[in-house]
Amino acid sequence: MASSGEEQAAAAVRVIGGWASHYAIRVYVALKLKGVEYEFLQEVVGNKSELLLKSNPVHKKIPVLLHHGKPIAESMVILQYIDEVWASDGAPAILPADPYARSVERFWAQYVDDKISPASVVLRGVINGDKNEAAAQVYTALQHLEEAFVKCSQGKSYFGGDNIGFLDIVLGSHLGWLKAAEEIAGVKVLDESKFPELTAWADRFYAHHAVREVMPETDKLVQFNKHLINVLKAKGMFRSHV
Amino acid sequence: MASSGEEQAAAAVRVIGGWASHYAIRVYVALKLKGVEYEFLQEVVGNKSELLLKSNPVHKKIPVLLHHGKPIAESMVILQYIDEVWASDGAPAILPADPYARSVERFWAQYVDDKISPASVVLRGVINGDKNEAAAQVYTALQHLEEAFVKCSQGKSYFGGDNIGFLDIVLGSHLGWLKAAEEIAGVKVLDESKFPELTAWADRFYAHHAVREVMPETDKLVQFNKHLINVLKAKGMFRSHV
Repeated sequence: MASSGEEQAAAAVRVIGGWASHYAIRVYVALKLKGVEYEFLQEVVGNKSELLLKSNPVHKKIPVLLHHGKPIAESMVILQYIDEVWASDGAPAILPADPYARSVERFWAQYVDDKISPASVVLRGVINGDKNEAAAQVYTALQHLEEAFVKCSQGKSYFGGDNIGFLDIVLGSHLGWLKAAEEIAGVKVLDESKFPELTAWADRFYAHHAVREVMPETDKLVQFNKHLINVLKAKGMFRSHV
Repeated sequence: MASSGEEQAAAAVRVIGGWASHYAIRVYVALKLKGVEYEFLQEVVGNKSELLLKSNPVHKKIPVLLHHGKPIAESMVILQYIDEVWASDGAPAILPADPYARSVERFWAQYVDDKISPASVVLRGVINGDKNEAAAQVYTALQHLEEAFVKCSQGKSYFGGDNIGFLDIVLGSHLGWLKAAEEIAGVKVLDESKFPELTAWADRFYAHHAVREVMPETDKLVQFNKHLINVLKAKGMFRSHV
């Protein structure tokens, strides 16, 4: 794709995102891990920018990574792109080198988005649904992931071993909204007594330098959730049924 | 994972699949492209094998690739595993080398499964739903994919260029069931006059040596679909609402 003059004048790496979007947080964390400077372009809820609509015309969703003007959409696709482009110069690898270990992380990453994302929006009240069922779905997912952590980490700090990797980023990005969802719905899903490994991992993930700066505080997410529901209702886009 | 004696005695590469499964067809095509011999293990609808339940305990679904006894599940994860393990010895690459081109194929592959799979099962009557809406959804997807083909193929035969690649396999695996769905629902979605590029691509894909042997005939899929619906009804698993 040819870059326009305007695009060439912009920063080499830009992220069309939102401070509260867990999908976008994945991109910020990956770029920080790789030590890549980027320009952050904040989208406003309910008012998509021309740049977003042009860059992701199919889904019209954040995040989009713009690399020398070329758009890459879908958070997991972006993570792999970042890992492949910034693969040398001592940058830590996001996916492991071993094909089997890569397949295990890709499998669980897809599982996380299939199970935790839909349940999380129900717990947050963004989509009406059975909150007990949603909490049970997250609980079952965490049971699987607690086991997966033991197998993947092999006694180390992260799913990716000594360093934050692909599955750490994909699951970790949900943590902020999971805490907010627990507060909004008045339930506890990531319970230390039931998920000791994941709870300790979550604390380590939160404390990591690449995460600390971009992971929003729970209170702010709870406030943002109210705002989001209001915007959806005002636009007639609130989904009252799953 | 340690392999048991039994597993070590088995073929190095096995696929737990089904002749009619479009997700499993992806795996056969990829292995044939790479020139990898494999043992095919046919699952019976409605009666999952112990090996499947043990190899994919989370989803309990085909396909599963067993490589020296190690299980890899989820078709797109398997395709990338195959590409990474059999990467040399003149084996054709499934994903391109360029990170941007890889991201484009991954983006569209996810789009195909998000849009075409759910609509296809409605057209086939496996899940009750609005058939006109489903046909319209496939139609919109094909419009996007017709454009994507022109951009990806750059005048060559496949999305992957001169050779069948990741997106070719992911979209191409749907073709058999799309033809069957057209016959079952009495609609035409992949219309040559509207999608000249995709129609010509589909003919080339079907004629490819790696595809011909494993892509079922439309009549057989139509028959299998009736059998599948009967099994689902007998087991009380027929989903009357989406």
